[in-house]
Amino acid sequence: MIGVLGGMGPLATADFFNKVIALTDAQHDEDHVPLLLQSDPRIPRRPPAILQGARSPLPELLAGRDRLIAAGAVALAMPCNTAHYWFADLVKDCPVPFISIIDSSCDALKSLPHGAKVAVIGTRATLAAGLFEAALAKRGFVGQAPSEPLMESHILPAIADVKAGRVTDGGKKVEHAVQALLDDGAQSVLLACTEMPVAMQAIGSPLQPRCVDTTLELARACVAWWRAYHP
Amino acid sequence: MIGVLGGMGPLATADFFNKVIALTDAQHDEDHVPLLLQSDPRIPRRPPAILQGARSPLPELLAGRDRLIAAGAVALAMPCNTAHYWFADLVKDCPVPFISIIDSSCDALKSLPHGAKVAVIGTRATLAAGLFEAALAKRGFVGQAPSEPLMESHILPAIADVKAGRVTDGGKKVEHAVQALLDDGAQSVLLACTEMPVAMQAIGSPLQPRCVDTTLELARACVAWWRAYHP
Repeated sequence: MIGVLGGMGPLATADFFNKVIALTDAQHDEDHVPLLLQSDPRIPRRPPAILQGARSPLPELLAGRDRLIAAGAVALAMPCNTAHYWFADLVKDCPVPFISIIDSSCDALKSLPHGAKVAVIGTRATLAAGLFEAALAKRGFVGQAPSEPLMESHILPAIADVKAGRVTDGGKKVEHAVQALLDDGAQSVLLACTEMPVAMQAIGSPLQPRCVDTTLELARACVAWWRAYHP
Repeated sequence: MIGVLGGMGPLATADFFNKVIALTDAQHDEDHVPLLLQSDPRIPRRPPAILQGARSPLPELLAGRDRLIAAGAVALAMPCNTAHYWFADLVKDCPVPFISIIDSSCDALKSLPHGAKVAVIGTRATLAAGLFEAALAKRGFVGQAPSEPLMESHILPAIADVKAGRVTDGGKKVEHAVQALLDDGAQSVLLACTEMPVAMQAIGSPLQPRCVDTTLELARACVAWWRAYHP
């Protein structure tokens, strides 16, 4: 089984689960990827820990990691971009592979030309921590952050909308932000918060092909990993 | 956390997960019900075990149950009607409450008059084993099985459709079966296979209010259980 450290938020984890299923070419139940999904919404909030020094979720993340491994997970994934702030801590001494949402998502950009501008939208913590910067630079791309007014007016309210179940409202806000970033020269927009693809799907946004759905790319990487591990 | 013994099939488990989230009145992540979902599609098929004496999935179900409890589950649920054939075996010596999809679903019929006919559609194994009969009778209802031709032409093909991802095709077949059973005098139709609500949702069937969605009722019972346990 692949262990999934989720619940940050639950809807994003359910979206990840749905995407793993949809990406699997299955005729019968047994063709699907076995998963053990922890959806624990009690894990301390990630942004305040990163931005304001509030209590770190790392002890709970490590406990979840070890719980999943003890229960039989042979690889791990975490459908939450912000929580990848602690990725190095989670990988350290981890006895099984941990599939990164950051690397999986940046790998999806390989058709873009060297030097392409790639916008990254997500929580303030994800952006402040520059979680995607090194991965983009390594592949020859230039990361582009949204402006502060766009963060305040559209991006952060969209994330709050999805976490409260207002997915259509959230979708309109994400779409507006994506369009603004494309107008500003981005060649692709990384939806680097797993609430955002949920929102864009809810409104069936025509801008989805211009975006990288980080949840979908993590799901794709997990299906590929499982197929290689256990064909 | 509530432990979920799932993967029978995976899409039904994802549907259950989505429904738990949708039924939760949440403003923030931490308002949601913590879940630990095992989606293990390698559990031996239930119908051949019941109908043809093929290898029983009970050892795998017990192992899954114990894995979830060892990982911290304080209650259990299993979003698969057919697997409730082994419910008594799973409840025996189980140190935590196991929330039954059968009781949760029959409780949803309480607005029907005494003596009402309730059709039950599901796998041949669910029907042959009469999984719902006692629970319906105890509440004063009369169970009604679909005809053999309806099973062959619509119900079994619909389940296979969903398991292979053809949810719209499956939806049309389930809808046809539901209409036939209502025409035959049923006052409600229990969608007693967790693939069926997925199919009916996919086509937005107007007959959904005439049905009991067993996945939804199990999700409702789980949310209520968690609220009472940990308000």
